[in-house]
Amino acid sequence: MKSGSDGRKIASAAIAFLFLLAAQPDRAEENPSQKALTAAEVLAAAQPGEWRPLDPENTIYLELAGGRVVIELAPRFAPLHVANVKALAREKYFDGLAVVRVQDNYVVQWGDPNAENPDKARKILHARPTLPAEFDRACDDAAPFFALPDGDVYAPEAGFVDGFPAARDKAAGRMWLIHCYGMVGAGRGDAADSGGGAEDYVVIGHSPRHLDRNCTLFGRVVQGIEHLSALPRASGPMGFIEDAGQWIPIRSVRVAADVPPAERSELEVLRTDSDAFRRLMQARRERNEAWFLNKPGRVEVCNVPVPVRKKGN
Amino acid sequence: MKSGSDGRKIASAAIAFLFLLAAQPDRAEENPSQKALTAAEVLAAAQPGEWRPLDPENTIYLELAGGRVVIELAPRFAPLHVANVKALAREKYFDGLAVVRVQDNYVVQWGDPNAENPDKARKILHARPTLPAEFDRACDDAAPFFALPDGDVYAPEAGFVDGFPAARDKAAGRMWLIHCYGMVGAGRGDAADSGGGAEDYVVIGHSPRHLDRNCTLFGRVVQGIEHLSALPRASGPMGFIEDAGQWIPIRSVRVAADVPPAERSELEVLRTDSDAFRRLMQARRERNEAWFLNKPGRVEVCNVPVPVRKKGN
Repeated sequence: MKSGSDGRKIASAAIAFLFLLAAQPDRAEENPSQKALTAAEVLAAAQPGEWRPLDPENTIYLELAGGRVVIELAPRFAPLHVANVKALAREKYFDGLAVVRVQDNYVVQWGDPNAENPDKARKILHARPTLPAEFDRACDDAAPFFALPDGDVYAPEAGFVDGFPAARDKAAGRMWLIHCYGMVGAGRGDAADSGGGAEDYVVIGHSPRHLDRNCTLFGRVVQGIEHLSALPRASGPMGFIEDAGQWIPIRSVRVAADVPPAERSELEVLRTDSDAFRRLMQARRERNEAWFLNKPGRVEVCNVPVPVRKKGN
Repeated sequence: MKSGSDGRKIASAAIAFLFLLAAQPDRAEENPSQKALTAAEVLAAAQPGEWRPLDPENTIYLELAGGRVVIELAPRFAPLHVANVKALAREKYFDGLAVVRVQDNYVVQWGDPNAENPDKARKILHARPTLPAEFDRACDDAAPFFALPDGDVYAPEAGFVDGFPAARDKAAGRMWLIHCYGMVGAGRGDAADSGGGAEDYVVIGHSPRHLDRNCTLFGRVVQGIEHLSALPRASGPMGFIEDAGQWIPIRSVRVAADVPPAERSELEVLRTDSDAFRRLMQARRERNEAWFLNKPGRVEVCNVPVPVRKKGN
């Protein structure tokens, strides 16, 4: 009968997800280099130095009534946008603005709901209203590119740099961040240089990779995305919230370095240039958990959330 | 300054999404076969015969307090599971059961919260408690496979059959449904034949393609997924809702054919064996909208929701 063991059903399939990776540590600790490890075992065996803390100067907190969204910034890929979003946060530009768009299987977007009304629009004091695009950049020998050997539909090569999903075209000498779940970018109009970070979006659905190199991505949500992804879907065209009463107010956006240490979210990210990360990719490819009857044998770049945990776990 | 034209920002990027595809019909009607059409123009020019109505005998309604979720069933791929889910609906098995799992970027799952407690578990009267797996099936010449030429990380070939995202291994003579956003499957325990449709899940995040051929998929949400995808994320392990007070009650699950015609959701799906669908894929590849500064040149199977509209649109 089904009532017994089936109660948790596809449960095991989820085992490799964030914060759920502490199962069966004993076996992993005994055999950290053994091939048949599960993702949970690989993470349990990761060495302290294979995790890195968030840099408070490159982390921002988006504070909503529902809770805090922690965003790690990507200065290697979008130095101008990262600097500008921090400048906007530091002049308290976002405080009292709102989430204005919640489109199912696509994006949540925030900024100034009155941006189109010169009388009511929030003034930008010191930051830049717009910036040149940072859609891609030159390959960087200083940045280890962890390339997945499994192929990618949209790019010659996909993998990870600095903990962010990225793509690379070696022949062209370019690399760029890609639109996986949780990635944060700057909205823009038709012109490449019409964005600047004052209106931003986060991916909350299947990765919209057609946006790659069409928007500047500058960060990734590392904690609290549920405060955005579970918002009620808006019924306006393209998921914009048409009723001003339904805008979701932003309490504040702060650079973590400006927040008293006791109030910071102390998180660590698994280094994507670590051996543990390499083993984690292999475990995701092999799926050694008993539940898997057909091993996928591949990993796709956006189907691998980079692990995050509380510091000192 | 940014306050004017930037207000809607990545707006244009979303234009090819469901129900948002009515722009610029004039040009499309003049030149339906012209290469530079946008997705909106292709859909506006689709002929009535290129849309097909849902079959009420292969459609179920999952009714929640938040609204109706319409699921199209896939009898070609999972005949046993489709028949069983309909039998379960017809004996009112699901009525009063609940959504028991909401895991961010993964799945929402529903069934009997007391399935593991023999005293309290809902009895299955006429349907089957478990079934043999229907993870894949033989290729079927009667089912046109619309193959995408753009590659796929997980399968030799990806595309669409009967309006569902599917993969194919021609050499092995097998094809199977794949885990894109909105796909509905039967949970199971470790044994392949431990599921049967009494506990089901829907994908609400980036496509977890590692589940392909590990679970039986039997349908796709064609309307109302926001009643599932925007539910509060649960804090229990693997997104299970641990507090019984937080389970989300199922009002009923019904086969559309059993619902009075006036109460049905009359929807049409773009035929994936139509010329309009072929042109739509090309438009998604080319992205002729002015907003796109870098044309993707590719489409990935789960990044193409099959269009759905109200009947008679």
